[in-house]
Amino acid sequence: MNIEAVDFFYLAMPQIDDIGDGSQDALLIRVAAGGYVGWGECEASPLVTIASMVCPMSHSACKPVLASVLGAPLNTPEDILKIHEQVHQNSMDLLQTDHALSGIDIALWDLLGQRYQEPVWKLLGYEQTYPKTPYASMLFGDTPQETLDKSKAMREHGFKAVKFGWGPFGKHGPEADRDQLMAAREGLGADTLLCVDAGTIWGADLAQGEMRLDALREAEVFWLEEPFHTGALGAYKALAAQSAPIFIAGGEGAHNEHMARHMMDYGGVGYVQIDTGRIGGITVAKRVADYAAAHEIRFINHTFTSHLALSASIQPYAGLRDHHLCEYPVELQSLAYELTSDHLLPDANGDIHLPDRPGLGMTPDLAALQKYLIDTEISVGGETLYKTPALA
Amino acid sequence: MNIEAVDFFYLAMPQIDDIGDGSQDALLIRVAAGGYVGWGECEASPLVTIASMVCPMSHSACKPVLASVLGAPLNTPEDILKIHEQVHQNSMDLLQTDHALSGIDIALWDLLGQRYQEPVWKLLGYEQTYPKTPYASMLFGDTPQETLDKSKAMREHGFKAVKFGWGPFGKHGPEADRDQLMAAREGLGADTLLCVDAGTIWGADLAQGEMRLDALREAEVFWLEEPFHTGALGAYKALAAQSAPIFIAGGEGAHNEHMARHMMDYGGVGYVQIDTGRIGGITVAKRVADYAAAHEIRFINHTFTSHLALSASIQPYAGLRDHHLCEYPVELQSLAYELTSDHLLPDANGDIHLPDRPGLGMTPDLAALQKYLIDTEISVGGETLYKTPALA
Repeated sequence: MNIEAVDFFYLAMPQIDDIGDGSQDALLIRVAAGGYVGWGECEASPLVTIASMVCPMSHSACKPVLASVLGAPLNTPEDILKIHEQVHQNSMDLLQTDHALSGIDIALWDLLGQRYQEPVWKLLGYEQTYPKTPYASMLFGDTPQETLDKSKAMREHGFKAVKFGWGPFGKHGPEADRDQLMAAREGLGADTLLCVDAGTIWGADLAQGEMRLDALREAEVFWLEEPFHTGALGAYKALAAQSAPIFIAGGEGAHNEHMARHMMDYGGVGYVQIDTGRIGGITVAKRVADYAAAHEIRFINHTFTSHLALSASIQPYAGLRDHHLCEYPVELQSLAYELTSDHLLPDANGDIHLPDRPGLGMTPDLAALQKYLIDTEISVGGETLYKTPALA
Repeated sequence: MNIEAVDFFYLAMPQIDDIGDGSQDALLIRVAAGGYVGWGECEASPLVTIASMVCPMSHSACKPVLASVLGAPLNTPEDILKIHEQVHQNSMDLLQTDHALSGIDIALWDLLGQRYQEPVWKLLGYEQTYPKTPYASMLFGDTPQETLDKSKAMREHGFKAVKFGWGPFGKHGPEADRDQLMAAREGLGADTLLCVDAGTIWGADLAQGEMRLDALREAEVFWLEEPFHTGALGAYKALAAQSAPIFIAGGEGAHNEHMARHMMDYGGVGYVQIDTGRIGGITVAKRVADYAAAHEIRFINHTFTSHLALSASIQPYAGLRDHHLCEYPVELQSLAYELTSDHLLPDANGDIHLPDRPGLGMTPDLAALQKYLIDTEISVGGETLYKTPALA
């Protein structure tokens, strides 16, 4: 079969707030081939990503992403690899490409799963899946008291691991951060894993990370995530060399396999965090997982949006038993939660299991999504290049 | 003064051919502040870059680029740095950002030059400029005979250095490449510098590079450019370790300062090639030039488009005497040539000099550009986010 159609749908909450919450909008991707349909999601600006799908060619290495996808053969996982090669060759100079390809790749895997009636993790070569321990991923409160309240709630909710990030952290000096960290630890109690996400707030300033290490140790933080910009490999390496027993984590900013490997090869991260909706999809994330597993580095998903994205992000390391943590967003906007009619909910033991269903095992709830659909239109030189299709 | 307006203009040739010629379209940027106007250019897909300027906010780290630019103070070079910081903080998760920021940054420097009646290179801290030896940058012919004819013409034209790239090179095996290389050398004669651009054709496949080294040496090639993807640092390093006396060159794919440093720190390049229209503009390119100069690596511009872009790309290393080569496109489409009424033409000695005029010293030829202007419109949720403004 060949790829017959690729459609994309810009979904958004009625109001987008200026906070670090990536679940406020979504770009949903639908691919059709041979009577089958697959769904994916890009974790990226919907409008810019749509533009990268349909833009006019600038030159031979700057073509719209769809030019390398529509009509391509799709019968086996190898065909997905060939599509990646074509996209990278034809859209090399189009910076947004990997974010766009991510959602397409996810939909292609979902579609092949429907075709073969197998879950994606089986198509990826895993014999079985292992349970993942979800860490509840949330924003720091504006005050330590708010963070205390949030962390107590998470403990009562039964999460074995919690991550706080963004918000005020890193912006108001080491003492303010220490108060936040101690509040989080107090609320969680001694036995809950506590991770911290600095959201690249310190750029490449190693000293800013160093001066927090004592407080991070005092609060028994498990990992410190993204102290620096993804590219600041030297600062990552230097902080990782002195942070034990705290792991340094990063990688969500990687938009290709090379960048993820740089974080491991040159940056010294102990946890590599990959967003399948950004790095180029399941295909690329799986390669990163293989590399991490071979180098004693833990792979983990980065997900702050729908359960479609959550399933897609866990597939690449579903069969790696020792890589047992997963990011699990707990403050989703209604759009992101309603995006699928199925959800990955913790079992009695608090663990997450990928469904043993074809593809991603998640069904978009098209009826629920109608109210979030944003009419979008792009025209160039008198020609309409994109107009929101019906979501049905 | 504060930034009052940022306008962008999608320009294109009537027909875009499927060849490696980046001069077939352009995104021209105009910034206005305090009664002054500055011009810049993004070396990127015009439509996708426009979308990144005006897209709706997705979350706090995924805002449209313009949100951090419009209204910002602009009185000194330090204000440009502050705009960079704001853009990177507010648009960190928007992949297209650095390509968009590039054109804005160039226009900001041009505008400050008009304000202070100084050329950009003086505002960058250089006391004087040094002449650059242009290498004629062209595509390989489809056959060795075509390449022979092209190289003879370049020699007769008086160029001291020529670079061939793309076209069939790297695609048809080492023997076919050897024929191309020997044809280029034969046409140029013994005294003309010959560079070769493989256009990342071998991905990360070190062996493909290694098996061409003998022929490259036989043809006395000065540098081999982009044998691999920008991210394949290990392959770069391994090839550079065995390529002497041939330099390995790369860097045009870098879209921030970190990536350019990776090419130097981990990739072993001898020449770092920076496109001011992609890496974040003159501000970032200057930092890379400083770093290269401090590490015995040669900085050089990457430019395959207008003379506005050419001036912008030479400013960052205008005062570095030992970095004396510059890329000089000689097969420009009429759009790219007509974009400015001034041009940087070789002097009697064959060298290029930056003008000692305010800003970039280049004036867009608005009358000539009218015929290339592409009407573009983007609407989201019933609101028109972009509509091509009048170019006047």
